[in-house]
Amino acid sequence: MHIVITGGAGFLGARLARTLLAQGRLSLAGAPARDIARITLVDRAAPPPDLAADARIAATIGDLNAQLADDGAAFWREADAVFHLAAAVSGECEADFDLGMRSNFAATHGLLDKLRALGTRPVLVFSSSLAVFGDSPEQPLPALIDDRTLPTPQTSYGIQKFIGEQLVADYTRKGFVQGRSVRLMTVSVRPGRPNGAASGFFSGMIREPLAGLRAACPVPEETPVAIASPARTIEGIVRAAEASDADWGPRTALNLPSLATTVGEMAAALERVAGTAATALLDRTPDATIRRIVKTWPGRFDTPRARALGLAADESFDAVIRAYVRENPDAVKLVIGA
Amino acid sequence: MHIVITGGAGFLGARLARTLLAQGRLSLAGAPARDIARITLVDRAAPPPDLAADARIAATIGDLNAQLADDGAAFWREADAVFHLAAAVSGECEADFDLGMRSNFAATHGLLDKLRALGTRPVLVFSSSLAVFGDSPEQPLPALIDDRTLPTPQTSYGIQKFIGEQLVADYTRKGFVQGRSVRLMTVSVRPGRPNGAASGFFSGMIREPLAGLRAACPVPEETPVAIASPARTIEGIVRAAEASDADWGPRTALNLPSLATTVGEMAAALERVAGTAATALLDRTPDATIRRIVKTWPGRFDTPRARALGLAADESFDAVIRAYVRENPDAVKLVIGA
Repeated sequence: MHIVITGGAGFLGARLARTLLAQGRLSLAGAPARDIARITLVDRAAPPPDLAADARIAATIGDLNAQLADDGAAFWREADAVFHLAAAVSGECEADFDLGMRSNFAATHGLLDKLRALGTRPVLVFSSSLAVFGDSPEQPLPALIDDRTLPTPQTSYGIQKFIGEQLVADYTRKGFVQGRSVRLMTVSVRPGRPNGAASGFFSGMIREPLAGLRAACPVPEETPVAIASPARTIEGIVRAAEASDADWGPRTALNLPSLATTVGEMAAALERVAGTAATALLDRTPDATIRRIVKTWPGRFDTPRARALGLAADESFDAVIRAYVRENPDAVKLVIGA
Repeated sequence: MHIVITGGAGFLGARLARTLLAQGRLSLAGAPARDIARITLVDRAAPPPDLAADARIAATIGDLNAQLADDGAAFWREADAVFHLAAAVSGECEADFDLGMRSNFAATHGLLDKLRALGTRPVLVFSSSLAVFGDSPEQPLPALIDDRTLPTPQTSYGIQKFIGEQLVADYTRKGFVQGRSVRLMTVSVRPGRPNGAASGFFSGMIREPLAGLRAACPVPEETPVAIASPARTIEGIVRAAEASDADWGPRTALNLPSLATTVGEMAAALERVAGTAATALLDRTPDATIRRIVKTWPGRFDTPRARALGLAADESFDAVIRAYVRENPDAVKLVIGA
């Protein structure tokens, strides 16, 4: 089996590739599991060294729109499954409208048209986002989001993701792909360097203090957030590829499970795990731009569809931080309590 | 004031133009009403003779995508308001996927990008459709659709209209246009010739018998339908242009009011107005293709947002038929009861 991951050199793409390589096999849409022969990582950036060193990994480096236009590329045709994770992130899209329309809107449409033209009907997992939900004074979100809540995106990123969901649904209904859209929750703790996502601080406020660095905490303590750890997030993405049509249900995007917490509770968890030496490194300087985006996102979800698929939220943010510490020993400088 | 109507030679576009010419003035987004100096009709077809003869009407004939690409066209720049009614219809889009993607998806995106590039920030009224709502076994629609019901389109036409709504919302939020999307209900009775809409028979089953012609009634009598007369439909479109931002409310598309009826009740109304001579002309031969599309559409709406804007549904389908007879005397051959 051949797999393509767009955004495959990014944090989630690389982690997905590692997970798939480790399990060695994958079931697609309820079919019996087959061996994974190759994973092609499509990204602007080169893959991390551990992946580049694996014989089953191929990498193709460049802009996704350009790669879709390259008729010589064989991997699209060979793909049994495509995980479409490549995207410009929320903060970038809000600052640069054209970037978002190109990287999210046009690229997702282009990918679907490419796969349709090939006629190979692969499984396509599209990573959407909780950012399709947006609170506004004219149309407040309900206190609890469920599987039938109307998305009213309040950012260009959210609109572009929601449009992607609609395209995936119709290309699936028409039989061009076997598409499933999953709405990712706020992923924390992301390792590595900050990106342009407005949600980036939800990871930075944990990751940087653990590394002994100062970090911004630019929104009020009571700000709600729907968190999923990297492990739970990848679990949801893989489950979307595996589920049979009957188990998956409607073509509407699936809200993945999340832990409902707040920025203040996250800081308290950091203090429980790493002491006041960690929380002393948090700069509570408000950032109006980030606040404006983040405050439109919902914090509490009820996700019966995901539950029925066997997906669960993280148990506590303390556990999420401890998992990060275990998985990233080189990035942690502070002494961690038992 | 200059106005552009895409699809301006079509039935609704032409009726909108006549309505605007008759009132002579228009208020845009709550501003004081101004005189209408010119209405440009953009369409593949030439406008009807009565409009072509009016000095305030300009017509530009050709494909909308081509017209958007024509940098020499001054009317886009001069437009204070654009009514975007041009579309490929439901049945066509289901039969020809590329046609729908070009005429609905690409053209709506192209129009928004054109207006954004001009920087003129016109009022833009986008005609969406009740076809954004779709019933399916995996995700049944609620019995009553309201202003917060999640659209789950089950046709390419519905998907394309729903994507158009999202684009209009974000181009509006970014300040590129002052956009308002209205979801039209099933318009009946449309005069003139049948088109490729799966909903076409909802007009044909009244119009053709009144003209002494046989007509198809291809779905079961109990099929529910949310009807609006041409007059009520144009009223909603004009109100969308006039309403102030505060009155309009959220950027989510507005469900226009509708009369909840059934195909059987429509036939009964036809018999009350025009006798058994009319209903004897109905051919009740099922059409599986039309049935498959139409049965996914909802029949009952609660529309508090529209009500708050002063918009109301037709009182009865009998009254809708009588209005058609009054407005189209030359198309009616049967003797109509008092």
